[in-house]
Amino acid sequence: MLTMKSELWIEEKFKDIMGVRFKTEETCFAGQSAFQSVDIVKTRGYGKMLLNDGLVMISERDEFVYHDMITHVPLFVHPFPENVLVIGGGDGGTVREVLRHTDVKRCTMVEIDRMVVDSCKEFIPLCSKDLENPKVKLIIDDGVKFAKDTKEKFDVILVDSTDPIGPAQPLFGDEFYEDIYNCLKSDGIVVSQGESPWYQEEMQRKLMKIKSRLFDVVTIYNFSNLTYPGGLWSFTFASKGLHPIKDFVKERVAKSCLTFKYYNEAIHEAAFALPQFQKENIREFLKGI
Amino acid sequence: MLTMKSELWIEEKFKDIMGVRFKTEETCFAGQSAFQSVDIVKTRGYGKMLLNDGLVMISERDEFVYHDMITHVPLFVHPFPENVLVIGGGDGGTVREVLRHTDVKRCTMVEIDRMVVDSCKEFIPLCSKDLENPKVKLIIDDGVKFAKDTKEKFDVILVDSTDPIGPAQPLFGDEFYEDIYNCLKSDGIVVSQGESPWYQEEMQRKLMKIKSRLFDVVTIYNFSNLTYPGGLWSFTFASKGLHPIKDFVKERVAKSCLTFKYYNEAIHEAAFALPQFQKENIREFLKGI
Repeated sequence: MLTMKSELWIEEKFKDIMGVRFKTEETCFAGQSAFQSVDIVKTRGYGKMLLNDGLVMISERDEFVYHDMITHVPLFVHPFPENVLVIGGGDGGTVREVLRHTDVKRCTMVEIDRMVVDSCKEFIPLCSKDLENPKVKLIIDDGVKFAKDTKEKFDVILVDSTDPIGPAQPLFGDEFYEDIYNCLKSDGIVVSQGESPWYQEEMQRKLMKIKSRLFDVVTIYNFSNLTYPGGLWSFTFASKGLHPIKDFVKERVAKSCLTFKYYNEAIHEAAFALPQFQKENIREFLKGI
Repeated sequence: MLTMKSELWIEEKFKDIMGVRFKTEETCFAGQSAFQSVDIVKTRGYGKMLLNDGLVMISERDEFVYHDMITHVPLFVHPFPENVLVIGGGDGGTVREVLRHTDVKRCTMVEIDRMVVDSCKEFIPLCSKDLENPKVKLIIDDGVKFAKDTKEKFDVILVDSTDPIGPAQPLFGDEFYEDIYNCLKSDGIVVSQGESPWYQEEMQRKLMKIKSRLFDVVTIYNFSNLTYPGGLWSFTFASKGLHPIKDFVKERVAKSCLTFKYYNEAIHEAAFALPQFQKENIREFLKGI
């Protein structure tokens, strides 16, 4: 729940055991869409911050971490990512990073909630600035429906979803991943927002289990987000054969001439090293690793 | 500042831009020593928690992360760590992990604040349980003074300090590290609590700078602490020659038959991969890496 107190702090509470509060200076946008509440606030220490249903999605201060890691890990593993699909990602940061790869000819983004896109276009151009790029096809629709209906085949799919409550719930289900599997090319990769190793052990197991039934290579990688509860956060990685480290040709990073604030060659490999407690939690679903 | 509100939350505030709150159920201990305030509270989600001057030091839920990483990284790099010095570490968790290494013949712990040791002995045996081990020499004194005066030479020194406010301030200074250098054997390693890459960039630079004047190998490694602001946290690693990865013989971990909840061989190496923003911040002080 988003609570705006008299002294202007927003707070993300977690299971009534902890809360993270951020000092805010201004409300830029506060709306209620058909799917969720959408708030953009200006904070004192983190720039502007987007919250859906009271949960921090991104802040200008640290959005680069999430967007670097959801994008560059799979796009530097796939040898020639021409056609990319982003499901969710309404703020635009993932699309922005995808477009930096010159191999990419086309990026389709399917976001269910127009209010997220529109409010980020107005208030967080840092993320949304490339949504009008001619390579981008922006579709406001249900990603689950899109994955079921599309005839298009993609090299890389990025499931940039909110948490598995509200509109994102079906994005954590079996059927959705069957459809994702079917709309990936034969060397395709899918990466999905994978929740917290500390707080969502069951969800991590569930996502890994769903993917390990379908894909040949299934694993998880971590990153450190400044504004998410607990800091440590995960993406799941699944592919029809490409290995996230063995098929990662480090030299491609330097050759790309891209610069990053979080990602680098060493971080790419290190992200797949899991703390022992997390590894044990999902060990039975690791595949091809 | 430790604030105990009517609804029983404790809150660690950071620079008036953010706060992390934990739901508490009971105060086990609340004291004011000559050096700092010392509180132990029972939280709803994290077991018992120790706070010094209102800053979270450890919780029963995640203490293994910090203690694994301060201890096992240097102790698996040093080929034969017989004599270990812990400066600070009043809760006892670091000593507990040190003693699991059968090579260790003697572990000296120098903690300035008897109140921390005594309260943890009473309320957090999970950490303090090995402080009475005959291999342990517990000295209640100023670690700065001890390092200056001792004639003993150590294989590994672990500076398990609080943040550089209050009693720990001199532990972040030049003179202290000159003395540390002098009481390390010729293949010695020192690891020090290194603050947050997100919030204490200047302190990370300062610590690295001090160490790079003295030591041949100087770098930093990260871990993800559940209860520290921002999650991502660092240790600095400095040695008179041993390299944290090249001199790490992975096989020693399996051979030790030790089990861990956070540390493993892959985490050891991965911890030294720094996010790009952090690497750039301390790049000029990296040495021998």
